[in-house]
Amino acid sequence: MKSSARNQFAGKVTSIVSGPVNAEVDVLLDSGDHVVSVITAGSVKALGLREGSQVVALIKAPWVILLTDDAGLKTSARNHLRGKVSRLVKGAVNTEVSLQTDGGLAVNAIITNESVDALGLDIGVPASAIIKASHVILATRT
Amino acid sequence: MKSSARNQFAGKVTSIVSGPVNAEVDVLLDSGDHVVSVITAGSVKALGLREGSQVVALIKAPWVILLTDDAGLKTSARNHLRGKVSRLVKGAVNTEVSLQTDGGLAVNAIITNESVDALGLDIGVPASAIIKASHVILATRT
Amino acid sequence: MKSSARNQFAGKVTSIVSGPVNAEVDVLLDSGDHVVSVITAGSVKALGLREGSQVVALIKAPWVILLTDDAGLKTSARNHLRGKVSRLVKGAVNTEVSLQTDGGLAVNAIITNESVDALGLDIGVPASAIIKASHVILATRT
Repeated sequence: MKSSARNQFAGKVTSIVSGPVNAEVDVLLDSGDHVVSVITAGSVKALGLREGSQVVALIKAPWVILLTDDAGLKTSARNHLRGKVSRLVKGAVNTEVSLQTDGGLAVNAIITNESVDALGLDIGVPASAIIKASHVILATRT
Repeated sequence: MKSSARNQFAGKVTSIVSGPVNAEVDVLLDSGDHVVSVITAGSVKALGLREGSQVVALIKAPWVILLTDDAGLKTSARNHLRGKVSRLVKGAVNTEVSLQTDGGLAVNAIITNESVDALGLDIGVPASAIIKASHVILATRT
Repeated sequence: MKSSARNQFAGKVTSIVSGPVNAEVDVLLDSGDHVVSVITAGSVKALGLREGSQVVALIKAPWVILLTDDAGLKTSARNHLRGKVSRLVKGAVNTEVSLQTDGGLAVNAIITNESVDALGLDIGVPASAIIKASHVILATRT
């Protein structure tokens, strides 16, 4: 598989909580980071997901919010990955920003140039990537 | 906190409806507008949310759809904010469009240049911003 | 209605599965393709949705992931539309890519230029568009 999703994180399912429509799936990434995904209960069945299943979490860069100075902040986003800016690719309106987490995970976000300036993002600056669980797609190989 | 989310709306929780996986949280913004968010039930607990809690709703600009000529239209998106175009920043593919609502709220959307032309968006043109509840992140300060 | 959503697919509701917060709605498009949407149960009621209801599915281009070489791949995304690249509009950071499905549906995605290169996307190349059900908005006319 080749995917346009700029974030493709391999890992293993560690828990599944199911409701009538949706299910919450916790994935332990190979980097040691955790990613939580909310997918439909139908997808859990279709993919045959259970504890230990190997999956790839797909997350597009425009779905990632970056935070700085987030001491004392809590968000409803179940995914909060801390790291340092490792790369910036600037366009006319948007910039692609890459964070490197302590676990070695590279997280890519696309944000506006104004936000890059407002947050003072530059190589080496600490920042957090936040991602809603409902924005994480899980993929498996049969 | 500094966030790359181009929309950061402060308000108070007015109601919470919880299911086994997700919960729907209604927020009355300081501008008088309402924003509905669907987050996981786990996040409601982790943030200690209840009626009256102070929160900030975070919404990235690429998650906002703009509509014009929407008389008689209903959408499943729980958030439908009416206003007038107050600002346009054009790039090669995308434009950042800002709406000002009657309540004084500034809502930022990133849409394609083709859509700007197709909708005839320009300063002062009336338009609506629609946002899915599942795209709204809530943040709190401890 | 005019909408900035680059994907606007007309169709009919074929089934609805409701939970306490969310509902899963299956839509048969006029092109013969299916689209699954997860919306709030409140929206199902507000729109008066039932089997046979005429709807338009709105999906912004940045919510679409493109895949190539996806034999044997399964994803949790409920929407997986196969086609061939019919158009590319390149910007400084992002490219808008259009796929044409066998059923004649045009699907628009915005992905990074790096992904266009990594996937070898060009006119006529087969690719799949994947879209999470929670990223699909449904609209009706009253």
